[in-house]
Amino acid sequence: MELLVDFLTRFVTQFQTPALAFLVGGMALAAFGSKLEIPDAIYKFAVFMLLMRIGINGGMEIREANLMEMLLPAVFSAVLGCGIVFLGRITLANLPGVKVEDGIATAGLFGAVSASTLAAAMVILEEEGVVYEAWVPALYPFMDIPALVLAIVLANIYLNRKKDGANTRVKIWPIITESLRGSALSALLLGLALGLLTRPDRVFEGFYDPLFRGLLSVLMLIMGMEAYTRLNELRKVAHWYVVYGVAAPLVHGLMAFGLGYIAHLVTGFSPGGVILLAVLAGSSSDISGPPTLRAAIPTANPSSYIGSSTSIGTPVAIAVGIPLYIALGQAVFGF
Amino acid sequence: MELLVDFLTRFVTQFQTPALAFLVGGMALAAFGSKLEIPDAIYKFAVFMLLMRIGINGGMEIREANLMEMLLPAVFSAVLGCGIVFLGRITLANLPGVKVEDGIATAGLFGAVSASTLAAAMVILEEEGVVYEAWVPALYPFMDIPALVLAIVLANIYLNRKKDGANTRVKIWPIITESLRGSALSALLLGLALGLLTRPDRVFEGFYDPLFRGLLSVLMLIMGMEAYTRLNELRKVAHWYVVYGVAAPLVHGLMAFGLGYIAHLVTGFSPGGVILLAVLAGSSSDISGPPTLRAAIPTANPSSYIGSSTSIGTPVAIAVGIPLYIALGQAVFGF
Amino acid sequence: MELLVDFLTRFVTQFQTPALAFLVGGMALAAFGSKLEIPDAIYKFAVFMLLMRIGINGGMEIREANLMEMLLPAVFSAVLGCGIVFLGRITLANLPGVKVEDGIATAGLFGAVSASTLAAAMVILEEEGVVYEAWVPALYPFMDIPALVLAIVLANIYLNRKKDGANTRVKIWPIITESLRGSALSALLLGLALGLLTRPDRVFEGFYDPLFRGLLSVLMLIMGMEAYTRLNELRKVAHWYVVYGVAAPLVHGLMAFGLGYIAHLVTGFSPGGVILLAVLAGSSSDISGPPTLRAAIPTANPSSYIGSSTSIGTPVAIAVGIPLYIALGQAVFGF
Repeated sequence: MELLVDFLTRFVTQFQTPALAFLVGGMALAAFGSKLEIPDAIYKFAVFMLLMRIGINGGMEIREANLMEMLLPAVFSAVLGCGIVFLGRITLANLPGVKVEDGIATAGLFGAVSASTLAAAMVILEEEGVVYEAWVPALYPFMDIPALVLAIVLANIYLNRKKDGANTRVKIWPIITESLRGSALSALLLGLALGLLTRPDRVFEGFYDPLFRGLLSVLMLIMGMEAYTRLNELRKVAHWYVVYGVAAPLVHGLMAFGLGYIAHLVTGFSPGGVILLAVLAGSSSDISGPPTLRAAIPTANPSSYIGSSTSIGTPVAIAVGIPLYIALGQAVFGF
Repeated sequence: MELLVDFLTRFVTQFQTPALAFLVGGMALAAFGSKLEIPDAIYKFAVFMLLMRIGINGGMEIREANLMEMLLPAVFSAVLGCGIVFLGRITLANLPGVKVEDGIATAGLFGAVSASTLAAAMVILEEEGVVYEAWVPALYPFMDIPALVLAIVLANIYLNRKKDGANTRVKIWPIITESLRGSALSALLLGLALGLLTRPDRVFEGFYDPLFRGLLSVLMLIMGMEAYTRLNELRKVAHWYVVYGVAAPLVHGLMAFGLGYIAHLVTGFSPGGVILLAVLAGSSSDISGPPTLRAAIPTANPSSYIGSSTSIGTPVAIAVGIPLYIALGQAVFGF
Repeated sequence: MELLVDFLTRFVTQFQTPALAFLVGGMALAAFGSKLEIPDAIYKFAVFMLLMRIGINGGMEIREANLMEMLLPAVFSAVLGCGIVFLGRITLANLPGVKVEDGIATAGLFGAVSASTLAAAMVILEEEGVVYEAWVPALYPFMDIPALVLAIVLANIYLNRKKDGANTRVKIWPIITESLRGSALSALLLGLALGLLTRPDRVFEGFYDPLFRGLLSVLMLIMGMEAYTRLNELRKVAHWYVVYGVAAPLVHGLMAFGLGYIAHLVTGFSPGGVILLAVLAGSSSDISGPPTLRAAIPTANPSSYIGSSTSIGTPVAIAVGIPLYIALGQAVFGF
């Protein structure tokens, strides 16, 4: 009961943090029919800056990190990425009115990771004074790539079987390189490499880090507007996508919280790390996932997977998920 | 006499402040035929940042402000917005060679407000150490909306009467929502709401505020280039637009200075506030005004109202008006 | 021998400085087939910011500089700009498989100056604690304009003579104004004028200067990607362009180092100034040079001059040239 009250209080006050406030503000603007537009060039650059900030910082920290500590959370990330896709395959993809390949693609997107959601959680944790290992954001690709690869493999297996019952093998390596070449993972891995191998401290401290928070607020605004605008597309697809979009982020986040807690007991994974792992699992890809899926599963309907992820999954992951995991963390770890 | 010398000295030295220097620099570049271009995405983003900065700060201050103090200046703002349009209706719109609807549209633009002019004045006042109530920039919509609405109503009344003598009623509410949905007012109101209802302090202090001055310099440069480039368009319309473009900003500013002085005597409105009210009235809309007018008075000729506002009104409002009101303020309030 | 070891050590460690690391990172991304794109609007704005930063700072320093001190380096800059083009005219342009006008255009580009290379050298010198007269970057136009003008004049003389043996005079003044109107020189000269004539200190310290380093890293990334992508174009042209692209930056830089050393002996030109003069001469134009040449020598093949400059000249100038001149400076001046 106390947890519930605490959660509800937290829930309401969290909407005053810039990350959530700008998200809601963007939705309100779109609902009001505002003609405000943030140019696409600014959106792309803001995403690039976020990923570089996360990557460089991760790389600098991994230099000094105990790699063994990273092992268990990295394995859990991959397990979660795959688990989420399998779960979607046996639930959403089998529901009435849901085309199987659409359901698999949607599960793939929810297994993949959103850099903006991750960034919002990092900023909120920092404001709450909750610490985490700085390499945690570097778990991103360990969850993102397996999820996208598995979704594409499962979709192709299904489609091939449907077509001619043949057992054509799906080539996995091209899907992995395709994922790595996507703009989001490229930027993240570039940042990681720069942080790991070079001395970017001054440019990090004077540019990428100080602009992080501000550009995140701009991104949240754009995502809010986008979420509202895309809601229309959802009307064209089965209602189950709405149910999945609301429930999946929280279910995935709680699964990750549980695995993170095991890592906490086994290797001393920090409470903040457990929360971020839950955020990673609860988030759904908004930048590089959709074009990868569109190219790899061309028969799947983008309105279904982009609509349920952008319009429902992401707002739920940010506005409900993040406060929920922090409240849970406080109850479990007592910080 | 001393006032005149002081004004002239001030006038010349003000051109060394970045805001004015970049404006003149932009004009010089365009006059020289430079191929320098600031991408449109940067322009739009800079305007967004300015309006968010002004809005958030206004919202944070209104939280602690005595709303009663705002009342009189807000009423005066609306009176000025409408007064400017009426004045244009009975002067400019009746001059030979000026189409009535073109004249009304021009008066509407001069009654509306320019965020960049306001921002330039805020930065110059700050450099001069002149303080003002932080909610003064939030008077923006109180002047902007009534002016645009009134201009559109007057133009439609005129056009309907001309057409068939009928007394078709003009619907006011759609014009108001249309104004509010424009990108400039949307951003300003979003900022106000975020400042009023949430805790954006960190993102304001780390992002919107520090980038304010710099992005303003970029905007001033663009406006200078634009002003020179648009001068050509003015050659196609009546010379009265040039006379109006030079005289109107100063007349409107002085009218506002007078009303502001009354508010100073009645409610203790600050000298800096009186100057900013004059700047608001003297400025003419450059972002959201033109598209609103274009949509609502389609028969009016954009070359007339955009040309006289961008090429003449805005440079006069910034480069002559701002120093004039500051010099007046020094003479009247003795700061 | 010690110099060699020192140079090699320096060479390797320099790749950890952000400027070089981002350049190499960009090449690696492009080689890997990454789909990361930095929007063109951001690229253009970053270049504008760099040039304004260099110009404003130069202007502010020239105000207090002893202009006589600048004289010799300025003369040497013009001599180098012309010398480089003449050298290319009698070497590259006469090689088998190289069209004469292509060779001249390429030499013109290598005589002209790259703002990003200059900026990278400034940041690296600052990190090494090597000081230079702040007006040195203002030598840019003294080298850039003569080089482009001479290349265009030589190409036209050649083309006219080939065509009809006539001795049509080439008009020089239009080429100079064309150069000055180009976006790079416009921005630089605007910055110089603002720094010289106005008081832009606050906007310089709060905006142009702090963003300099960060935007440079973004530019270096773009240039790295561009360099790799353009390599393909070089396959279509004679191999001599590759040889020229590797050798010319270093030969030009060493020539400039020699002249700079003379200025050091005669007027006390600083060691850092000598290094920057070498960097200016070793760099090749990437922004305003190509369009100027394309307009003025339309029969020359852009693949030859842009390819050899962007793909080979610039990476060599930055990654080999800058460390080389710094190592030379340490050996010669013993700082």
